Amino acid sequence: MVQMLDTREDGFAARFEELLGMKRESSTDVNDAVAKIIADVRARGDEVSSISRRNSISWDLREAGLAVTEADIAGALASVEEDTVEALKLAHERILAHHSRQLPASESYIDATGVELGQRWSAVSSAGLYVPGGTASYPSSVLMNAVPAKVAGVERLVMVVPSPRGELNPLVLVAAALAGVDEIYRVGGAQAIAALAFGTETIRPVSTIVGPGNAYVAAAKRQVFGQVGIDMVAGPSEVVVIADKENDPAWIASDLLAQAEHDAAAQSILITDDAGFAEDVVAAVETQLKTLPRAQTARASWDEFGAVILVGSLAEAPALSDRLAPEHLEIATENADALAEEIRHAGAIFVGRYTPEVIGDYVAGTNHVLPTARSARFASGLGVLDFMKRTSLLKLDAESLKKLGPAAMTLARAEGLDAHRRSVGIRLNLPD
Amino acid sequence: MVQMLDTREDGFAARFEELLGMKRESSTDVNDAVAKIIADVRARGDEVSSISRRNSISWDLREAGLAVTEADIAGALASVEEDTVEALKLAHERILAHHSRQLPASESYIDATGVELGQRWSAVSSAGLYVPGGTASYPSSVLMNAVPAKVAGVERLVMVVPSPRGELNPLVLVAAALAGVDEIYRVGGAQAIAALAFGTETIRPVSTIVGPGNAYVAAAKRQVFGQVGIDMVAGPSEVVVIADKENDPAWIASDLLAQAEHDAAAQSILITDDAGFAEDVVAAVETQLKTLPRAQTARASWDEFGAVILVGSLAEAPALSDRLAPEHLEIATENADALAEEIRHAGAIFVGRYTPEVIGDYVAGTNHVLPTARSARFASGLGVLDFMKRTSLLKLDAESLKKLGPAAMTLARAEGLDAHRRSVGIRLNLPD
Repeated sequence: MVQMLDTREDGFAARFEELLGMKRESSTDVNDAVAKIIADVRARGDEVSSISRRNSISWDLREAGLAVTEADIAGALASVEEDTVEALKLAHERILAHHSRQLPASESYIDATGVELGQRWSAVSSAGLYVPGGTASYPSSVLMNAVPAKVAGVERLVMVVPSPRGELNPLVLVAAALAGVDEIYRVGGAQAIAALAFGTETIRPVSTIVGPGNAYVAAAKRQVFGQVGIDMVAGPSEVVVIADKENDPAWIASDLLAQAEHDAAAQSILITDDAGFAEDVVAAVETQLKTLPRAQTARASWDEFGAVILVGSLAEAPALSDRLAPEHLEIATENADALAEEIRHAGAIFVGRYTPEVIGDYVAGTNHVLPTARSARFASGLGVLDFMKRTSLLKLDAESLKKLGPAAMTLARAEGLDAHRRSVGIRLNLPD
Repeated sequence: MVQMLDTREDGFAARFEELLGMKRESSTDVNDAVAKIIADVRARGDEVSSISRRNSISWDLREAGLAVTEADIAGALASVEEDTVEALKLAHERILAHHSRQLPASESYIDATGVELGQRWSAVSSAGLYVPGGTASYPSSVLMNAVPAKVAGVERLVMVVPSPRGELNPLVLVAAALAGVDEIYRVGGAQAIAALAFGTETIRPVSTIVGPGNAYVAAAKRQVFGQVGIDMVAGPSEVVVIADKENDPAWIASDLLAQAEHDAAAQSILITDDAGFAEDVVAAVETQLKTLPRAQTARASWDEFGAVILVGSLAEAPALSDRLAPEHLEIATENADALAEEIRHAGAIFVGRYTPEVIGDYVAGTNHVLPTARSARFASGLGVLDFMKRTSLLKLDAESLKKLGPAAMTLARAEGLDAHRRSVGIRLNLPD
């Protein structure tokens, strides 16, 4: 049974804190196991990948090789339905168009002192994209991770994906081809992350690794961080829906369930100012669960982590939502734009009754890789900048150095760094 | 004795690989100790900070309290030399001016389908700034870390700094006051990071933590990553200098030593096309070491990690430098601008003979917190964006949902996510 809170009831603050502090992920400590795998891959390369694959499958992948071929991709394309490919193409086109606007501008200017200052954005040379196997192997996620990399200008985009029974989701291959992925390897788990970070005989190392994965993959990304760049370590998905009573309860229920069906650890929260509407939504959730193929997962999520928060006024909603800092926030109210203006911490905001979060999962053009577990307080969704870095540039001449140098020398002395002081003084003919 | 390489000699590739692979930091494993400290701070708060401080100092800080007061800052200001304060003010002004140009623009637009897409940048609400104690307690670093936070719009900027004998570097306090730091606490080490991440009775938690520190601080930042945002974990400083024979060898030697005096694990590398010039620089380093107060540190760095790379032509230099992906790159050649254009991986580039790296350490306006240990391949220097996050916004109406919805439904079906499909279909009156 989903929990119901009311901001006007005694003990709301404590119950809300509890909701905020809820741990939705079992924190199995796989750090030691992962450290061992990484060391092993660094020492033995491809061999490790092969062995680990052989342990979990009957088909010997070493025969087929790690690399996915052009023929594999052609085969995949031939095997999938045309309307799905068309939908992927539309998604690709829209993601490409939106992310192209994220390209940062390099700049250079000369200030009043005659100093030339610049910042130059450039792409990482290579990036790795982890794609989970099994049920979480989503073609949409391939697009969401690969397109920003290609927009950034990454020359070598390498995808890794486990193929437990020698099989790959053909749509994942189609999406990779659409997005311009350059290399694909059949390898998963911590060993795939290690291979991307340090390289093996088959897989050359990359500069940055992105993409979701299980606890082993997450731990491996954390451990190789520094050797390579990584994106956020993503947790279970979540949505907050702020809704007034003018909504069709069934629409809102379907949105809550769309989140809940992802994962038993997903979280769906409704904030509303109408008790009757809240009850209607809860009833609609029950009705819809009856005909939902993934009802077991969705029910587990809804019963354990779902919540309905009743507020005296919807004006209270933005502050509550900011505390939750949700990955996804839907605002289905009369004054949705005004409420959206007040939000400070959310991965993505879906404004108005005709903007279900699902549209952002697939075809809107915005990215669906978003900060989870309250990290929207400090983190952003995946974007073009995650595949770029900024180099600063400075250029002084004798004149401008004469103007700025003495202050630098004063600070160097104050910090006790005499070679610093000398490096400027020697150019200005100033004694040590 | 500094090592000399020549791209034309046999075995250069192997020696260069060795240079690239050089481990300059002893990797003491402090992870378990740090995990214990973090757990302890979470359980006992301020008490832990007090105890740990009492273990290393004789003066009981609990009497004075953790917080630095207005009076402490006024006292600091009165105790420092006026020309140093003036230099800090100049540095502050210039850093502020340059970083103000980094503020990203939020945007919103309606595309041809009628979909409103937006991205809204906003500051993190609060940030923590770690400042090391002892010799590495640099006022310039306080400015470099604090100014971008304030430019971003961070409302609550909290500085932590250990005060081993109850003392603080007064210039650090002056810099903090100049930069607009809101709270300062006398606490250091992993417990300071834990306090910033999880909060104690005295210190409210923050959203993002930046700033350099020792192995404990670095490990703590890594462990709290996810709970809060963190900047890069910085390693020892480094410089690559590309120089032709037209330079005064003493100038280049002073630049190499300015880097080397930071830390015995710092690294200074000269790339030049003239063997005689290389010898002159090496001789000038020896001469300058004789009169350098921090000669012991600088010599250790130069002898163990320094290198001179002779190239047949300076045209080879950019590719070599890109492999090293240095934190700092000086280009002191005739065609410095053209060479700078070819560089892809560097934290900062200092162009021309009158741009010693030191000018960027203090007063140029660019940030001196830059990616080390080859991480310039994927990471940027500290900037305003490190204290901001991007929220994406979407708004559809009935018409635009009708256009995009069917493709989303197709993809949801392909991914086996029926509640996703329903969430769109229910709004379009399309059956499941």
